[in-house]
Amino acid sequence: MDTVVIAGVGLIGGSFAKALKQHGIAQRILGIDRPEVLAEALELGIIDEPAAWDESVSRADLLYLAAPISGIMELLPVADALARPGALITDTGSTKVEICRAASRLAGRGCFIGGHPMAGKEIQGCSAADAALFEGKPYFLTPAAGQEQSASLQVLTQVLSTIGARTRVISAEAHDETVAFVSHLPQLMSTALAELLGRIPGMESAAGPGAVDMTRLAGSSYQLWSGILDTNVDAIRLALAEYVRQLSRIEAALGHPEMKKHFEDARKFARLLHKK
Amino acid sequence: MDTVVIAGVGLIGGSFAKALKQHGIAQRILGIDRPEVLAEALELGIIDEPAAWDESVSRADLLYLAAPISGIMELLPVADALARPGALITDTGSTKVEICRAASRLAGRGCFIGGHPMAGKEIQGCSAADAALFEGKPYFLTPAAGQEQSASLQVLTQVLSTIGARTRVISAEAHDETVAFVSHLPQLMSTALAELLGRIPGMESAAGPGAVDMTRLAGSSYQLWSGILDTNVDAIRLALAEYVRQLSRIEAALGHPEMKKHFEDARKFARLLHKK
Repeated sequence: MDTVVIAGVGLIGGSFAKALKQHGIAQRILGIDRPEVLAEALELGIIDEPAAWDESVSRADLLYLAAPISGIMELLPVADALARPGALITDTGSTKVEICRAASRLAGRGCFIGGHPMAGKEIQGCSAADAALFEGKPYFLTPAAGQEQSASLQVLTQVLSTIGARTRVISAEAHDETVAFVSHLPQLMSTALAELLGRIPGMESAAGPGAVDMTRLAGSSYQLWSGILDTNVDAIRLALAEYVRQLSRIEAALGHPEMKKHFEDARKFARLLHKK
Repeated sequence: MDTVVIAGVGLIGGSFAKALKQHGIAQRILGIDRPEVLAEALELGIIDEPAAWDESVSRADLLYLAAPISGIMELLPVADALARPGALITDTGSTKVEICRAASRLAGRGCFIGGHPMAGKEIQGCSAADAALFEGKPYFLTPAAGQEQSASLQVLTQVLSTIGARTRVISAEAHDETVAFVSHLPQLMSTALAELLGRIPGMESAAGPGAVDMTRLAGSSYQLWSGILDTNVDAIRLALAEYVRQLSRIEAALGHPEMKKHFEDARKFARLLHKK
């Protein structure tokens, strides 16, 4: 791959750039972001060249949109209009239905494949970028209907596998339902617990390791989450309803031997997850 | 303090023994447990002497009952019958109402003060014992009504403060309500999430760091939890009901600007907790 343009050189964009370099995948990496971010990314050797939107996109073989969801929605039409025909365009937005719907309305000069790396860190920004960020982590790809066998998808899958991601091709709808359970529900569970405990006097000084664990996600910023929650309301409602039903089954088992089965089933899943 | 007897030389009992030694608080530490546990504890230098129940308890200035709740309930009458008059008896049970009620029915040769250290580790057993386990952690003390100014409570508070615990005197009832929110609710939240995700195909391979965090507690063993849950059903029901109400307030805010306030309040509490 000759030229890769990364729009948004934060933790994800910066880590992708570093991983491409480490595996010798790209000849040249251009970055688009605020001037101070580009200066830092250049100094850290994450990008080769700071770039402006209009003069760089037409050079891209791969355009990687690593902005918040609202940013991706704004950049998509510009990216498609400026891309050279057949260029590969992908994004990293945490929900996919609205983004893929917007992409499907474009002229389609570039070839768009939605993406979502399930990787992150508590620290943001390109100074925290890490070439190994995607290693062993799920990376969803949501091609448009009919694009599941396209050459573009094959190329993107190849690149992501090389940098260690476990790619998974899925429809945008199934993706958003899955992440409602596996990501948005855990976030809201933690937010709800922290808000509840914060309202009751004395809870902070009584909290042990369990409460500390379960309120860690509650430290996430709303700015990061608002775009995610706003674009996945229906699927999140469904996940919350299922979760509340599960809680009431567990409540019904309080003081009864059936509780054992709940603990055993839960432990089985927890062990699967934590040995990774 | 001359002689301390630790009944149950696991993670908590072993860590308490080590902390007493490190701070030069006890002349001699006797341990009661299964022979193989005592052999290990002796080899690790955690106890000075393996002991049998009937010949050791009468020598104790302090008797530390660090067994599961059901074990504590069985040991209490024996301990009280064998203790020398005025000996200090305390326990480490995670719920306090039932234990303190049982203690109040005893003849009262020893002086019993309920205790609950909010400290733990994922690994159990005396090989994981750590003299610093209690440092900076909450340690609840639940004296019987009228005992809040007793010399025994003062002595115990002094010992626990010396080994770094943050002691907090509270009624058994208030204790059980507090831990229902701060410990039992987080455990059941995690159990419910892991069981729910385990039932839906594909969730394990899609899980990112958020789901991993929020299902960590679900790995806890039922054996450890059954005694806790069974002795605190009412308070746990109350906490679950409050939590479900909080979840539905958050659900109502999905797609609305009010969500910002939920995230901000939650983050405030999370930051308080995590800077510790």
